[in-house]
Parts: sequence; structure tokens; C-alpha cells
Amino acid sequence: MKFEVTILGSSSATPIFHRNPTSQILNINEKILMIDCGEGTQQQMLRYGIKYHKIDHIFISHLHGDHFFGLIGLISSMHLNGRTKPLYLFAPPELQEILDIQFKYSGTIIKFPIEFHATQAQKSEVILETNDFFVETIILNHRIPCTGFIFKQKIKLRKVIKEKVNQLEIPSQFLPLLKRGIDFIDKDGNIHKAEDLTTDPDVPRSYAYCSDTLADGSYFRYLQDVDTLYHESTFMHDMQDRAKETFHTTSLEAAQIAREMNISKLLIGHFSARYRDLTPLLLEARTVFPETYLANEGETFMV
Amino acid sequence: MKFEVTILGSSSATPIFHRNPTSQILNINEKILMIDCGEGTQQQMLRYGIKYHKIDHIFISHLHGDHFFGLIGLISSMHLNGRTKPLYLFAPPELQEILDIQFKYSGTIIKFPIEFHATQAQKSEVILETNDFFVETIILNHRIPCTGFIFKQKIKLRKVIKEKVNQLEIPSQFLPLLKRGIDFIDKDGNIHKAEDLTTDPDVPRSYAYCSDTLADGSYFRYLQDVDTLYHESTFMHDMQDRAKETFHTTSLEAAQIAREMNISKLLIGHFSARYRDLTPLLLEARTVFPETYLANEGETFMV
Repeated sequence: MKFEVTILGSSSATPIFHRNPTSQILNINEKILMIDCGEGTQQQMLRYGIKYHKIDHIFISHLHGDHFFGLIGLISSMHLNGRTKPLYLFAPPELQEILDIQFKYSGTIIKFPIEFHATQAQKSEVILETNDFFVETIILNHRIPCTGFIFKQKIKLRKVIKEKVNQLEIPSQFLPLLKRGIDFIDKDGNIHKAEDLTTDPDVPRSYAYCSDTLADGSYFRYLQDVDTLYHESTFMHDMQDRAKETFHTTSLEAAQIAREMNISKLLIGHFSARYRDLTPLLLEARTVFPETYLANEGETFMV
Repeated sequence: MKFEVTILGSSSATPIFHRNPTSQILNINEKILMIDCGEGTQQQMLRYGIKYHKIDHIFISHLHGDHFFGLIGLISSMHLNGRTKPLYLFAPPELQEILDIQFKYSGTIIKFPIEFHATQAQKSEVILETNDFFVETIILNHRIPCTGFIFKQKIKLRKVIKEKVNQLEIPSQFLPLLKRGIDFIDKDGNIHKAEDLTTDPDVPRSYAYCSDTLADGSYFRYLQDVDTLYHESTFMHDMQDRAKETFHTTSLEAAQIAREMNISKLLIGHFSARYRDLTPLLLEARTVFPETYLANEGETFMV
């Protein structure tokens, strides 16, 4: 099952060096989700060929502008492009007021339903569940309420080996049981083991998104054994004091979290405008966690 | 005296084909002014090397998103870049509320004064006057209150010819009179004509900005004899019905206005997403008004 993330923006605070503010696109089995939506996100979507109408779910971590200033424009464009199906928006409650006032004064009546789910920054909760995956918030520690998000695939059923099932003439009503691992007994009383008639399901994978936060340990446990972790790395570790002061993380700290929490792959992003060349941030993280990659714009990573 | 306009965005409604929503930069004798600020304007400024701190005045025509969604991000970036000097903002009154609510929920206290001048859409008024120029609003006819802006250079003083003045030993106290065209009488009673001792001042030029509007004639008189007119041309004339319905102008109508009002140069922009190639709009306008140019992004026009 496809599970990948495409980076639309990697800058913190302000756009700089052709780096845009934060936004990411998740593709989970062809369901397209957006995480954060900094200014210029719709232009980035055009650049990388991501269609407005494919997105039904948008998750906003917090109300600093570099994470949501592009949302009003994206919703307006969806509206102008004739969207009618609902958009599901998961965000701090105040965002609704920010959107509403702008629609009001522009005389815009959005032609599709916006199903607003207000996130809460006190405790982790499951905010979305589909057939394939669910989404849980992570409580981060930033200057204003901020949640991360974990996207976890569900454990899937075993996959039937068609030839074997046809050969034994197993009735179709039995297949759901077989997929759950229940052995089949034929009319002569022979037991056919489920594991011989099916193959293992895909191992469920998970993606965690952590931006912006002080690396203070309070949320690390949510990240245990996650496959791919995106973690903000605004500064290098020589700027640790500045990172603490602004409730941000250094690339070394992000790498330490990845190592401690048994992550498979770490993506770092939300880079400060002080770094034109990002290689030093990458190399610093790799001293601790070799499987680190820069969340460069336009790149797609398998989760 | 320098008087030129640089185009940062030429798209209507939504960004498309690498065209950004509306924004323009005016340079009048090294004073840098911004007109409208669609989403991604600050990214365009980076692209074309326009520094945040050079801009002290921003004019917003109306509260459709393609004309102001980039403003909150630009102000935030000015703040994060340590600005302390005032920013003068001329815009419909409701914009203040839109900005304030976003600063409130992001916990941002802007470190520089924003001097907000609420424009009114009932009658034309002078909203800014400097030593070099003044700015007047034009009442346009759009779906929501919308003003255009005219930037008019002031009539300057005559320029003293230094060699002649030195030769005649004209006292420096007399120079301001000479610049106003008053003749000099020397101690022997000889009259030295001001026009012989000075050269003509620069002819004051003017730039008018009209976006978005129905071409209904109510505002044409404000445009009489303007040097350079930017006028929206959202559609070609075969879409005149659609233009009327949406309170927009066709390229043919824009050209007719330019011809009737004795304009020297016409810039057309605010192009509908239906036009990938803009040449047909240009050619249509030039059938009526040959001195028409496309307001292409990154291009600078002398006024």
C-alpha cells in the first residue's frame, strides 16, 4: 500500500532562498492529505502537480503564520474551481474565526461544506479514522498551543492466495474468516491451515509530524517505533540556547529523539533563515542518526 | 525623477501558469510603494530583489483574497526581520480586523507601528501627500467596495543653471524665487529673465491603477491625461457578458478607456485562468490602443 510524503515547504518563519514555509502532502493508499499550509502552498501545488480536488483532509499544527497563511487562499481556490465535496479541516479552534471573517468581508460564500474539527492541545486524541489508517494528535511544547500528528496504518487482513482457494473450492463466504487466520476444514475433515492459503498482510507503517516544539521529552513516547519521523530542526546545536528560547529543536536533538525512539527514517525541516546551505544540519544529525534526510521541497519520501 | 512600476503578480482569482495574484511595486524618486498584495507577494519580492525594509506604504484596493492574502505574511516577515519604523497601510477598514485577529491568535505583537488609513469607497479623496507626489483614490465598481489609486507627481520648481547664476553672483537667498520663475534684477538695474537662468522642471507624470472594476464609465474622468494606466483586463471581449456578470473589464474595453482618456501607455493585467497564452488579449487591446503592454511578472515599466 502506498504511503509517502511530499515536501512543499521547509522554511521556518519567513520564505527565503526559494524555500517556502511549511506544508506537506501525504499519500496513504491514494488518499491525499495535507499537513500545514504556509503562504504560497497553492503555488507549490501547481509547481509539483498536486490537484486541489484530490485533497479532502487538511491538518494544521498551530496558528503561527508560516503554518497556515496559505490556507485561506487554498480554500478560496478550491471554491473558485467549483468544489462541492466536503473539506475536513483539523486545526486549533480559533482558525475558524480567522477564516470566517475573511470570507465575510470578501463577500464569499464557500460552495462546499468545511467540516471543522477543533484540535485540543491538552491531550492526545484520535481525530480521524478511515478503513486504512487513523490519525492521532501529539501534544507539542511551543509558544502557542501546537499539536503534531501521527498517521498510523491499520493492521490489514491476510491476503488470500487465489489459486489455492480455487483449487480447494473454498466457498466465498469463508474467505473473510480465512483472511483473519482461521483454518479451513473441507468436507472430508481435512484441515487446511490459513497460513498456507494466505500470505502475510503488509506491515502497518506510521508517519509522525512534529513541528514546532521544544525537544523537552514530554511527547517522545508517542514516537516510539514510528517508521518515518518528520521533526523540525530549526537550528544547529551550537544555537541550542536560541532553540530553547524560541521553543524549537536543534538537528542534533532531532537525531537523538529518532535514535532513542527507534525510528527508521528521520526527515528534518523548518530551517532557520540563517542557513543558506543545509548540509551542516544534515551532517550534524547524521553523526547521531545516519538515516536522516533533509525535507527538501519537491522531494517525496517513502514512509 | 525616477517613476516606474514593477509587476509582481498578474493573475486574477487564483495563481496559475506560474502567474501570481496581483501586486505591484512603484518607485517614485526612490520612494518604494506597494499596490495590492496577493498570496506569495513576499516570495515574488525575494525573486526580484525587492527588500522588505524599503517599503513604507502599502495600498490595498479591495478585500478579495487575490489582492490581500499576502499582506499578513509580508507584515509578519517585516516584524521578524526587526523592522521598527512605521508602515503606512491604506485599505478598506475591515482589513484592520482581519490582521488583528491573526496577530492575536498567533501571539504576535508587531514591533513597529502600523498606521492604518481606512479608505472609503463612496468618493475620491487624497489619501497621501509627500514632497514629490500625492495619491488619490478612484471609486471603482466591483462586487465589493473597491478603490483604484492615482499617483501624481507634483509640479516641481525650475532648475537653476549654476554657471549662469555664479557668473552673475546672484545671492543664494534669491534662488528660491528664481526657481519659481521670478526674474533677477542686478545692482545696475539690468533684468535677467528667469527662463534664461533656469531650465524647465520635469513634467509631472502620473500613474493610475484600476483593479477590479466593471468598465461602466463612472470613474473614467479621473483617468484623463494620465501617463500610464494599469487597467485590469480579466477577459477578452468575446467574454463581455461574463465580464459584466463578475464586474470585470475586457481587454478591448481597457483599450477604449485608454484611447478616450488620452493615456500615453496602457498596462493590462489580472488575467483570467482561462488564458494560458496572453498574446490574444494584447493583440485585441492593440487594435484600439497600440501602446498597450502585458503586465508580465518581473517586468518594470517607466511611467
